[in-house]
Amino acid sequence: MHRFSLQTTRRSEMINITADIEAAARAVGVQNGSVLVWVPHTTAAVTINEGADPDVPEDMLRRLGTMVPWRDLDDLHGEGNSAAHLKSSLVGCSQVVAIQDGKVRLGTWQVVWFCEFDGPRQRKVEVTAL
Amino acid sequence: MHRFSLQTTRRSEMINITADIEAAARAVGVQNGSVLVWVPHTTAAVTINEGADPDVPEDMLRRLGTMVPWRDLDDLHGEGNSAAHLKSSLVGCSQVVAIQDGKVRLGTWQVVWFCEFDGPRQRKVEVTAL
Amino acid sequence: MHRFSLQTTRRSEMINITADIEAAARAVGVQNGSVLVWVPHTTAAVTINEGADPDVPEDMLRRLGTMVPWRDLDDLHGEGNSAAHLKSSLVGCSQVVAIQDGKVRLGTWQVVWFCEFDGPRQRKVEVTAL
Repeated sequence: MHRFSLQTTRRSEMINITADIEAAARAVGVQNGSVLVWVPHTTAAVTINEGADPDVPEDMLRRLGTMVPWRDLDDLHGEGNSAAHLKSSLVGCSQVVAIQDGKVRLGTWQVVWFCEFDGPRQRKVEVTAL
Repeated sequence: MHRFSLQTTRRSEMINITADIEAAARAVGVQNGSVLVWVPHTTAAVTINEGADPDVPEDMLRRLGTMVPWRDLDDLHGEGNSAAHLKSSLVGCSQVVAIQDGKVRLGTWQVVWFCEFDGPRQRKVEVTAL
Repeated sequence: MHRFSLQTTRRSEMINITADIEAAARAVGVQNGSVLVWVPHTTAAVTINEGADPDVPEDMLRRLGTMVPWRDLDDLHGEGNSAAHLKSSLVGCSQVVAIQDGKVRLGTWQVVWFCEFDGPRQRKVEVTAL
C-alpha cells in the first residue's frame, strides 16, 4: 500500500490525482494490473470524469450542492457537515482502476478526481495493489 | 465466497457490518488482501461512512429520502418501491475493501454500512476473496 | 482486457449487458474469479439493478432526470451536458463483479445495466480480469 497526501483549498473541490495514482502504482510495483484507490475520509470521495474542460467539475460541484444543500435545519449531527457525508457516499470513497504500462487505463476524456466536500483540509489517498 | 444474513427493522436503515465482513474475510481465508463485499439485492446497498455519531446515518437517510421521495405519482413499477431501486444504484450494491491483519483497512472514522432502503427484510451479504 | 461496443438509441437509457460481460469474461479467460467492468466514457455509467420489470429502469431514469435536470441556466460547460457528467459520477463508471462458472454472480433480481446519459451514441465497455 502506498499513501499520498493532498491539501484542498475550498469547501467543495475536485483535484486531478491521476499522476499521483500512477506514481503510487509504481511505488507498490504495479506496472500492469489493478489497484484500489481509497479515500480514508468520510466527507471526501474519488470519482472518474472529464478532465479537459475545468467547467465540468465546477458544474458538477454546483449541481451536487443544489441537490444536497449544505444547511438543513433538520440535521442532527452537531458538526454541521452531514451534506458532505452524504455526498461522500453518493460519489463513493473508492475506485478500482486498471493499470496498463504504468498508466491508469482511462477513456479519452477521463481522469481520476479527488473530491473534497468539507474543506479546506489536509487529505490522504491510499493505493493498494489488487 | 462467504455469505452472512441480517434482519433489518425499518424501511430505511444503516447497519454497521464491519465486524461481519472481518469474520467473512477469515472464513474465506483472507488475512491480508482484498475482498468484494456484495449485496445481492436491488433495493439495498453498501457504503463506507462515519461510524462514531449515530446522527450521521440518520441525517444521510433523511436527506436521501428528501432527494428520492418514496411516493412519486409518475412511477410505473407496480411494487411501489422505485425510490429504493434508485437509492440502491446511487449508493451502489458493492464495495471492494482491503483487509490488513484480518481487519478492514479503514480511515479513523470509517465503518462499512449495509443500507436498507425497502425494509424491514431478511437480507444477505456476500464476501468474495479477490 | 476485452472490449465490446453497444449503440444507444435515446438520451437516457439502460441496457442489460450481463450476457456481454459473460462473453467478455470467457474472452479474457475468467471462468471463476472476478472482473472489472469499465465504461471509458464520462457521460455514461454501469450499475446493478432489477432486470425483471422494464418499469424499474424507466422509473429510475425519470427520477434521476428530475434530480439532475438536463437544463440548468447556471451551467458553464459549453457542451450543455453537465447533467450527464454528474449522473455518471453518481452512478459510477465501473463495477467489480464476481464470475462463477462463467456467469456473473448476481442476486435473483439483479442484472448489469449500461447507463446512457447523453445518447444516442456508440459506446464501449471494457472487461478486465482482476
